[in-house]
Amino acid sequence: MEDSPEESRGWGAQAWAQLSAVRQRSPLIQCITNFVSMDLMANTLLSAGASPAMVHSLHEIPDFTPNVQALCVNVGTLTDDWLPAMKSAAELAVRLGKPWVLDPVAAGASGFRLRACLELVGLRPSVIRGNGSEIIALSKASVGPTKGVDSSHESTDAVEAAKSLAQASGSIIAVSGAVDIVTDGERVVGAQNGVAMMQRITATGCSVTALVAAFVAIDPLHAFEATASALSIFGIAGEIGMDMAKGPASLRMHLLDSLYGLDQATVLRRVNIINLP
Amino acid sequence: MEDSPEESRGWGAQAWAQLSAVRQRSPLIQCITNFVSMDLMANTLLSAGASPAMVHSLHEIPDFTPNVQALCVNVGTLTDDWLPAMKSAAELAVRLGKPWVLDPVAAGASGFRLRACLELVGLRPSVIRGNGSEIIALSKASVGPTKGVDSSHESTDAVEAAKSLAQASGSIIAVSGAVDIVTDGERVVGAQNGVAMMQRITATGCSVTALVAAFVAIDPLHAFEATASALSIFGIAGEIGMDMAKGPASLRMHLLDSLYGLDQATVLRRVNIINLP
Amino acid sequence: MEDSPEESRGWGAQAWAQLSAVRQRSPLIQCITNFVSMDLMANTLLSAGASPAMVHSLHEIPDFTPNVQALCVNVGTLTDDWLPAMKSAAELAVRLGKPWVLDPVAAGASGFRLRACLELVGLRPSVIRGNGSEIIALSKASVGPTKGVDSSHESTDAVEAAKSLAQASGSIIAVSGAVDIVTDGERVVGAQNGVAMMQRITATGCSVTALVAAFVAIDPLHAFEATASALSIFGIAGEIGMDMAKGPASLRMHLLDSLYGLDQATVLRRVNIINLP
Repeated sequence: MEDSPEESRGWGAQAWAQLSAVRQRSPLIQCITNFVSMDLMANTLLSAGASPAMVHSLHEIPDFTPNVQALCVNVGTLTDDWLPAMKSAAELAVRLGKPWVLDPVAAGASGFRLRACLELVGLRPSVIRGNGSEIIALSKASVGPTKGVDSSHESTDAVEAAKSLAQASGSIIAVSGAVDIVTDGERVVGAQNGVAMMQRITATGCSVTALVAAFVAIDPLHAFEATASALSIFGIAGEIGMDMAKGPASLRMHLLDSLYGLDQATVLRRVNIINLP
Repeated sequence: MEDSPEESRGWGAQAWAQLSAVRQRSPLIQCITNFVSMDLMANTLLSAGASPAMVHSLHEIPDFTPNVQALCVNVGTLTDDWLPAMKSAAELAVRLGKPWVLDPVAAGASGFRLRACLELVGLRPSVIRGNGSEIIALSKASVGPTKGVDSSHESTDAVEAAKSLAQASGSIIAVSGAVDIVTDGERVVGAQNGVAMMQRITATGCSVTALVAAFVAIDPLHAFEATASALSIFGIAGEIGMDMAKGPASLRMHLLDSLYGLDQATVLRRVNIINLP
Repeated sequence: MEDSPEESRGWGAQAWAQLSAVRQRSPLIQCITNFVSMDLMANTLLSAGASPAMVHSLHEIPDFTPNVQALCVNVGTLTDDWLPAMKSAAELAVRLGKPWVLDPVAAGASGFRLRACLELVGLRPSVIRGNGSEIIALSKASVGPTKGVDSSHESTDAVEAAKSLAQASGSIIAVSGAVDIVTDGERVVGAQNGVAMMQRITATGCSVTALVAAFVAIDPLHAFEATASALSIFGIAGEIGMDMAKGPASLRMHLLDSLYGLDQATVLRRVNIINLP
């Protein structure tokens, strides 16, 4: 731990204030996401106090998107019939000044997917959260050897790619890994919460992206800080869950229960966010 | 509790008889439902002893729907390519004298969704189950301010809307909430089982609608009573689950385990259904 | 138990070697599967040490499928827009010498579904895994009375159908049931692990098919043995899970935890695979 106690207390107090606001205001988060993640993503948002709505029909966006507090777009099981709704919802969110968050799942796994992700990046998401391989693929705009949806890069390998992408896109970039990295192109912080076994549960990455959307929804002018808080809070829920877990499936359950039950003292004590050079 | 012991014993005995019949006959329930709910809905039906089948291709309905005991249609993640199969299956179910149940998720959230729901209501579902906001939207046939899929109305605020809708549609109407309301347009009962935390688990509403379909499947001539029983039984499973739960995710697990294990004494003791004015 | 201790030890050692290889090499398994099963299938593969990727867009197959170690195709929620991608991925897998596994869910439930399954069988899957009713439907190429996705036949009733189908298709055939049957058209073995309550959890059948894909991925020249091992390993995880379970939902959790934690001594002691006449 290289951060001073003061700094950590600052982040902890901020994360607690943001989580409390999510619980009080219960922001409505529209999720256009992949089929694998829908259950865990909705339950993550509910456990955090937010209100999820999986609405992806192009015909509903003009009526529905104006009522939401944030939008989460995830390309995990992308087909071309879903892309117009993703773009339409993102464009409307931007026009209405609502934050939206992009999860570029497996961005480098095919030309089709990479092009779709780059089009979405061009629609100015507030935040882009991916793993190291995804952020590097977006930054280089290249298709590469792939481990599917899993990363073949450490998040720390992706710091420069993340900074470039942040500068080029104007988005906050978050890179998940052993340390979660968040950058706005200048500032870089590392959120050092979470446990390795979370990678053995499908859709944890997708779900933390939705949690980022909920945190940014209640504090859109501080998207950088809200992103770091959401990553740390989700990681803490995993840490506490891990104390009770006997494997990935019980960790999944205890993580959600812990997210629901997180109290102020625990958040203040455990948030571990540090400045990185 | 305003009901007499006799009345409660009557409902309890009836609910137990219906649950026992579901377990013995294992009715095949075709579910055309949203992506978020499929896992929990299928597991709810299996835990209750029924046999779920998520079959939504228009091409299969002529072969498949004649073999089912009931149909459950849920518009949660509606797109226009799914609507023809929903309508075709509902029409065939009605023609064959099979019960079908409608879950008008977020009916008032967009014009597209409201029109689709009203078309489905016109196909004479045996039962419509929604939350207060959904039933009010259907009854008024209006799009309104929305909390997405969550209700901004108490179920008890929706009693008059439910009675009107029952009279207009010929369907049994169920309204979920702190008290679950069931009406056929004249009679009104309140099923007072369940716990508040069930609203923090995605797809519990969708799943209880499927359970209603299973109960109505085995007792189609008493759809009013079967609907109240199913709501009460699901609520009891939640109550028992809550005794063991530490949060929404463990409640989800214990609810299903409890539904699977419910015994006669527990059902008779806990069913809490009362007549309402 | 009719097998000799030596024989059982042989199967146990082989199953352990294959599970260990899955954990070490973490094969990338492309799953084109139904909506109900995606969560449990992905989590099953992750708990076993494999890397799942739910990728089903026709546009991605040329870029993506060459990078995977095996393909799993499951027709559970089939519509005609999904079939071209299933066929294209299967054809490419065969052309590249990669194993692929077919799960013909509810094959006999409609003419549409049966034709689709027979077309897929014609693309020479390495393994076909179904329940008794599905394998009989494929073998007879006939639509019949259906219990939806559940079997109305015991696996042992389907042995002759399985042998015929293996001979006609060139695929290994696995039939799930109280005893899981595996045949290459000549040899027949029975994998006698697992517990009955697994049938009360949706998508366990789909998920063991994906596990078969992972095992065949690391030992494609021994697809017969790898299939039997995967069935046995999944069954053992269920047996251990059952010791802790209070119902189907907790069994689901404990099964995945147990799969993740399985050790050599347990596998050697519990694998129960016998030769059948």
